[in-house]
Amino acid sequence: MKTALERPYLISLAAGFTDSATLPVAETRALTRHLLRQTRRGQAALQYGSTAGDPRLLQQAANWLNQSDEGRSDRFCHPDRLVITSGSQQFLYLVTECLCDPGDIVLLEDPTYFVYLSIAQSHGLRALGIRMQPDGIDLAALERTLEFIKRRGDIRRLKLLYLVSYFQNPTGITTSFEKKSKALVLLRRYEKAAGHPIYLLEDAAYRPLRFAGEDEPSALCAKRGAERVIYTGTFSKPFATGIRVGFGCLPPELRDVVLRVKGNHDFGTSNFPQHLIAEALRSGEFARHLAVLRARYRRKAAIMAAALRRHFPRTVVWRQPEGGLYFWAQVPHGVSTGLKSRLFQAALERDVLYVPGGLCYAADPRRHKPDNEMRLSFGNASEADIREGIRRLGDTLREFLED
Amino acid sequence: MKTALERPYLISLAAGFTDSATLPVAETRALTRHLLRQTRRGQAALQYGSTAGDPRLLQQAANWLNQSDEGRSDRFCHPDRLVITSGSQQFLYLVTECLCDPGDIVLLEDPTYFVYLSIAQSHGLRALGIRMQPDGIDLAALERTLEFIKRRGDIRRLKLLYLVSYFQNPTGITTSFEKKSKALVLLRRYEKAAGHPIYLLEDAAYRPLRFAGEDEPSALCAKRGAERVIYTGTFSKPFATGIRVGFGCLPPELRDVVLRVKGNHDFGTSNFPQHLIAEALRSGEFARHLAVLRARYRRKAAIMAAALRRHFPRTVVWRQPEGGLYFWAQVPHGVSTGLKSRLFQAALERDVLYVPGGLCYAADPRRHKPDNEMRLSFGNASEADIREGIRRLGDTLREFLED
Repeated sequence: MKTALERPYLISLAAGFTDSATLPVAETRALTRHLLRQTRRGQAALQYGSTAGDPRLLQQAANWLNQSDEGRSDRFCHPDRLVITSGSQQFLYLVTECLCDPGDIVLLEDPTYFVYLSIAQSHGLRALGIRMQPDGIDLAALERTLEFIKRRGDIRRLKLLYLVSYFQNPTGITTSFEKKSKALVLLRRYEKAAGHPIYLLEDAAYRPLRFAGEDEPSALCAKRGAERVIYTGTFSKPFATGIRVGFGCLPPELRDVVLRVKGNHDFGTSNFPQHLIAEALRSGEFARHLAVLRARYRRKAAIMAAALRRHFPRTVVWRQPEGGLYFWAQVPHGVSTGLKSRLFQAALERDVLYVPGGLCYAADPRRHKPDNEMRLSFGNASEADIREGIRRLGDTLREFLED
Repeated sequence: MKTALERPYLISLAAGFTDSATLPVAETRALTRHLLRQTRRGQAALQYGSTAGDPRLLQQAANWLNQSDEGRSDRFCHPDRLVITSGSQQFLYLVTECLCDPGDIVLLEDPTYFVYLSIAQSHGLRALGIRMQPDGIDLAALERTLEFIKRRGDIRRLKLLYLVSYFQNPTGITTSFEKKSKALVLLRRYEKAAGHPIYLLEDAAYRPLRFAGEDEPSALCAKRGAERVIYTGTFSKPFATGIRVGFGCLPPELRDVVLRVKGNHDFGTSNFPQHLIAEALRSGEFARHLAVLRARYRRKAAIMAAALRRHFPRTVVWRQPEGGLYFWAQVPHGVSTGLKSRLFQAALERDVLYVPGGLCYAADPRRHKPDNEMRLSFGNASEADIREGIRRLGDTLREFLED
């Protein structure tokens, strides 16, 4: 932010912001007008709500989740398994606060969403990374890690596996349903030794932002998934990030605890934004806007892919995502992309910014953090800026690499 | 809530809801129309903001606070000492999370805001209550408590004194500026032994809702107050509780920590509600609405006072507040008002609900919790319901008391 202010020509491919140009300004104006037309209804939107969330929105969130998993789940998600939160971020925080004590262990994708690393760190947790493959975590690595924890006598401290399962932040990778199911089976196998449930925390924040390929079912659809999967999604990224409304689905025994803690945090997410989202869902405006967004991101992703093909040296490896906001690029080993690296500084001198991959890795004592990757976001940059930004970055990389 | 649904004729004098009839429905509709008329500006309101909050609102919050304390503060509050939060509630949680470790001690008014008791409990804190007088905490009791903690060798665990200093929830009492200043001096005296600052956490959530008497300066205005006072206020209660936007003012070294933790909680309060409040402040709508609210609460408080005079036995002691939402009534010792008491059940049978005073007391080992008080809210009940509710409660009390 500071850098952006100081450098007016800077192109940021770093921020995880969504596309500003498509934000539903007129639509939100119309929704508000409708919502606040009748006094009684308007008063309901402007008064306190309950800690769990607006009952209508809870039902809509359940419907949305059930539609996404259309009949593949053996147990449909009911509103009384849900909590409305200030974005899925708050839900991640609440769940971690409720489940984990200092010194506990969480398993993460390697790399993972860097704010979750910060949540884990702030609670004094130990985080271990599970290597990624093009269809999600490496199950053999997961098993090795579970064995490693068990051998060290630490299995009682293991609480959860956190997966950003759709168009992962930062890699863009989607975890296959098969892998999620098998991961659940693996985790179950260690529960007896652990003495408690080991949960799969599925962060589906980017799930609606698919612009190619087919949706994967959520882990809730796996056998006995409803007992061990904690699922979170958001209405903000698919509609307007300035209206922070997310939701989480979780087993009843956990929901009670999360509600108690949320009561202490804020006794419920702002009611007016909840009513706005509920009205957007009811009126069809949400679905219409999501279709617009998908087309928009499909186009921007294609532009970034074309620019990468054109400007990046062949030795830099990247893959086109099927949704979400990010490309992930791997520079040959030996060239650091870190904040203090020559590459990062040279990019900044050319007025282009990316997220260094090293920020997305846990401090896992079993390996050195890779520092030769970068996250490139096409979320908020304009089409022209995506082209120009990738060109500048390509020029920078060429200084450091053979083509 | 459940009780209310099951008993359609129930009059609740329990809920801390604000007045529904005066919620600014048409005003919010107009503000939104204005805010979202221009595309660019609308986009800014619907995009992510920063963790600290919208810069314009931070400036407005600083101005508001400075105007309230008009020149009495030796150091004016600057926006860079402020954080925007999801109501003042979230700020209370963040500050407590950042300052306190399990086993630490917090000092509270006796009685105090019951959700803060829950925050303290959830962090494993020990809470000690300071007896109340009509102008705030009893300073002699504060000093005795500080000595008690020091003698027990626990002074290093003491972190803060929490005061709901304006029209306190639940008693309606306002703490005088003199008492706040002297409390700060007292706390300072124990800092050397504590080995760290002991903060005064001033919760001014009800401050704008004054309908009689003169405003007291905040503790920030006390000598060296800016170094030790953490102050929080809210825009929600004076405008619309469905738009949860509060703020906190704190010393710079703490603000950095709070911002880091808030980043993990939700990386910033919803931007759209912040822009709405900023627009309400700029346009004068906020001030106009607040004037309406004050008149409304003045009238409702007068109605409750008249009903209490008419219907309550003389042996029940209560005092008329100068602002806020609550009356506090003390039944003679020996008659319990608790959730399981005969009185509470008899009131419920007459379809009237209050908050039992016992819920507002910390589990302080130095005394038994008083259980002969009740909190009566005139916030959301209609004028007719206030009259009828107090009549029913008076009839109930008469069954248990001599007049």
